[in-house]
Amino acid sequence: MKKINFSAGPAILPASVLTQAAAAVENLDGSGLSILEISHRSDAFDAVLVEAEQLVRELLNVGDEYGVLFLSGGASTQFFFTAMNLLNPEETAGYLDTGSWSAKAIKEAKNFGKVNIIASSKESNYDHIPRGYTVPDGLKYVHLTSNNTIFGTQFKEWPETDAPLVADMSSDIFSRRIPLEKFGIIYAGAQKNLGPAGATLVIVRKDLLGKVNRTLPSMLDYRVHIDGGSTYNTPPVYPIYVMMLTLRWIKAQGGLEGMEKHNERKAKLLYEEIDRNPKFRGTVADDFSRSQMNVTFVCTDEADTAAFQAAAEAAGCDGITGHRSVGGFRASIYNSMPYEGVETLVRVMREFE
Amino acid sequence: MKKINFSAGPAILPASVLTQAAAAVENLDGSGLSILEISHRSDAFDAVLVEAEQLVRELLNVGDEYGVLFLSGGASTQFFFTAMNLLNPEETAGYLDTGSWSAKAIKEAKNFGKVNIIASSKESNYDHIPRGYTVPDGLKYVHLTSNNTIFGTQFKEWPETDAPLVADMSSDIFSRRIPLEKFGIIYAGAQKNLGPAGATLVIVRKDLLGKVNRTLPSMLDYRVHIDGGSTYNTPPVYPIYVMMLTLRWIKAQGGLEGMEKHNERKAKLLYEEIDRNPKFRGTVADDFSRSQMNVTFVCTDEADTAAFQAAAEAAGCDGITGHRSVGGFRASIYNSMPYEGVETLVRVMREFE
Ligand SMILES: Cc1ncc(COP(=O)(O)O)c(C=O)c1O
Ligand SMILES: Cc1ncc(COP(=O)(O)O)c(C=O)c1O
Ligand SMILES: [Mg+2]
Ligand SMILES: [Mg+2]
Ligand SMILES: [Mg+2]
Ligand SMILES: [Mg+2]
Repeated sequence: MKKINFSAGPAILPASVLTQAAAAVENLDGSGLSILEISHRSDAFDAVLVEAEQLVRELLNVGDEYGVLFLSGGASTQFFFTAMNLLNPEETAGYLDTGSWSAKAIKEAKNFGKVNIIASSKESNYDHIPRGYTVPDGLKYVHLTSNNTIFGTQFKEWPETDAPLVADMSSDIFSRRIPLEKFGIIYAGAQKNLGPAGATLVIVRKDLLGKVNRTLPSMLDYRVHIDGGSTYNTPPVYPIYVMMLTLRWIKAQGGLEGMEKHNERKAKLLYEEIDRNPKFRGTVADDFSRSQMNVTFVCTDEADTAAFQAAAEAAGCDGITGHRSVGGFRASIYNSMPYEGVETLVRVMREFE
Repeated sequence: MKKINFSAGPAILPASVLTQAAAAVENLDGSGLSILEISHRSDAFDAVLVEAEQLVRELLNVGDEYGVLFLSGGASTQFFFTAMNLLNPEETAGYLDTGSWSAKAIKEAKNFGKVNIIASSKESNYDHIPRGYTVPDGLKYVHLTSNNTIFGTQFKEWPETDAPLVADMSSDIFSRRIPLEKFGIIYAGAQKNLGPAGATLVIVRKDLLGKVNRTLPSMLDYRVHIDGGSTYNTPPVYPIYVMMLTLRWIKAQGGLEGMEKHNERKAKLLYEEIDRNPKFRGTVADDFSRSQMNVTFVCTDEADTAAFQAAAEAAGCDGITGHRSVGGFRASIYNSMPYEGVETLVRVMREFE
C-alpha cells in the first residue's frame, strides 16, 4: 500500500515529481547519463539551476536586488550564517522566540552580536504566536520562524518594523503569498515544502551584505555563492534537481495563489474536525496562531492515543505521531499533501468518534 | 547510447547502484514511501546510517577512536572546518601545496592559525608530488590533498611526521589501502569515488577535538555531529543512501584490496597507451606522481586535440576534456569506472594513431 505521508520533514512530495525524479536517476532526459553522475558544470545541470532560480523568482516575485541561492547544510546552518554575515559584535538583532527552532537561531546568533528577544511564547510551551509587542528601533534585522513545525503555530501577520526581516521559512515556504519587500533574508531547508533533504534555499537582499568586519570563510560568505551562481563548489545536484521539479509542480498548481487556496482548504477540513469531534482537541491556544502546515492535536482522553494512532496507521496514514515537546499528534499537510490525504485522516477521526 | 562517464566529478557510479538508487526513489524496500520523503529519524534511515558507518569502518579499518560523519557542504567546507576545529591562532599547521585544492585549503586555514608550506610544486604548474622535503617539528597537523584531481597527481608515500595528517581524499578515497593510523582527519566530498554530490564523508580522531579556544557554531563543531550521530540536523538523506549503496558495492568488489587491483589495472592500461602512442603524452613529470584516478594527457601535436575529442565522443566517451589549468585531456577513472570503459578509450587512441 502506498502510504499517505504526514511526516514533518523530510516530507511528502508530489507523486508526479517522484516519478520524474526516479527516471532521471536512470537516465536524465535521454542524455545517456544519470542525474547522479553529471558534472555540476554541465549544460544539463546549468539548465536545472537556471530554471530553479527562475521559478523561485517568478513564484515569489523576487527582483534582481536579491540573490537566490541553492546551498547545503540545512536551516540549522543558516541560524549562524545569517548572523555571521549581517551582524557586527556591537550591533543588535531582534528575535521572535516562537519555538525550538527560533531558540536555536537565537543561541547561534549570540556568538556574533547582540540579541534582543522582542517577544516570546516560551512560557506557555510555545502554544501561540505573540501579538501586541512593539519592535524597538535600531535593530540590524528582525528574525522570525514563519511556521513553527513542532508547535503547529504560524505567523499570519508580519512584525511592524523598518528593519529587514530575516525569516526561517523551512516549513511554510511557497505555501502562501508573502510581502517579499519586507524580507532581507528568507531561508528554508528544502525537505518540507520544496524537495528532498540536502538542499537549502536562501533568498538574500544583496545590499545587506559586505557590512560585517569579521573575515568570512569563502563557503560562509553569501557573496561568494552569489558570485558563483551557487556553483562556487559542487552543490547538491540531485536535491536541487528535485527541488526544481517541485517548483515546476507548484507553478502548475497555480503558483502561490493556488497553493494558498489548496492549503487553506486542507487545513480548514482538518481543524473543523478537530474542533467538532469530542474525541480530539487542538494544542494551539488561538485560531490566529494555528498553522496551515503542521496541525497539532491530542485525544481529549489520553487513553485513546494508542488506539487512534493504530487506526490511522491501518488507513495508511504515516508519520502522525506528535513531537515529544507537545505529545499527541501532528499531521503535516505541506503543499504536496493532496486534499484526499486529509480526507482519509478525517474519515479515520470520524470513525473513531 | 549509455555513455562512458570519464567526468572528474560528480562522476560515474556503478550501474547496479544506479538501478537500486532509482528504485528507492519510487519505493524504498517495499515500504510504500520514497527514500526522498522518509524522516531522517525513521528506522529505515537509521539502518542506512548504521550500515554506511559500519561499511566505512570495516573497509578502512576505522576504530572507535575515530568518529565517522556524513555531513554536507563538500570538501570546500572542510577546508576551513578542519582548521577552525584544530588550530589555535598562535599554532602552526603544515600544508603540502600540490594543486588548486591544496591552495584553497591553505587560504582558508590562514584565517584560523599559522600555516607553514612544507613543500610546493606550484612553480611547475603542480606537475608532480614533491619529494625529499623535511617536515618540521611542532606542527599541529599536516594537511595534504592525497589526489590532485585537476593535475593528475597522487601521493604514493605519506609525509614522515609525528603530527597527525589531515587529508583531503575527495578524489581517491576507497581507491586503495591506506595506513589509517597516520591520519587525524580524512575528508572527502562523495561525488567522485563514493556517491552523488551532496554528502561529505569525514573521519576524525576524537582526541584532536575540543582543543581550540574559539566558540564554534553548533553546525561547525565536529563534536556536535559525533554526538548527534550525523543527525544533529537533517542530513542529506538521499546522497547518504546512495553512498551506502556504493560502499556495499566496494565491499562486494573485494574491499580496498579489490579496488586497488582494479584501479591499478585500469591506470596501467591507459598510461601504457599514452606512453606508447606517439600521438599522446602525459602531463605529469614523473611516474611516481601519476594519479591512478585522474589520468591527464595531451596530444603531442596540439592540432590533433579537437579531432581526438570528437573521436572519443563518437565512441561514447564523455567528460574527457582536461581542466583549463592543464589543457588537453583528463580521463577520470574512479572506482566505478569499469575496465571495459578504459579499454574503449584506449581503442579510440589506437585507432587515432
Ligand atoms: C522551522 C524549522 N527550522 C529549522 C529546522 C532545521 O532544519 P535543518 O534540519 O534543515 O537544519 C527545521 C527542521 O525541522 C524546522 O522545521
Ligand atoms: C581534491 C579535491 N578537493 C576538493 C574539491 C572541492 O570539493 P567540493 O566541490 O565538494 O567542495 C574537489 C572538487 O573537485 C577536489 O577534487
Ligand atoms: Mg518549532
Ligand atoms: Mg474537538
Ligand atoms: Mg587539484
Ligand atoms: Mg606517447
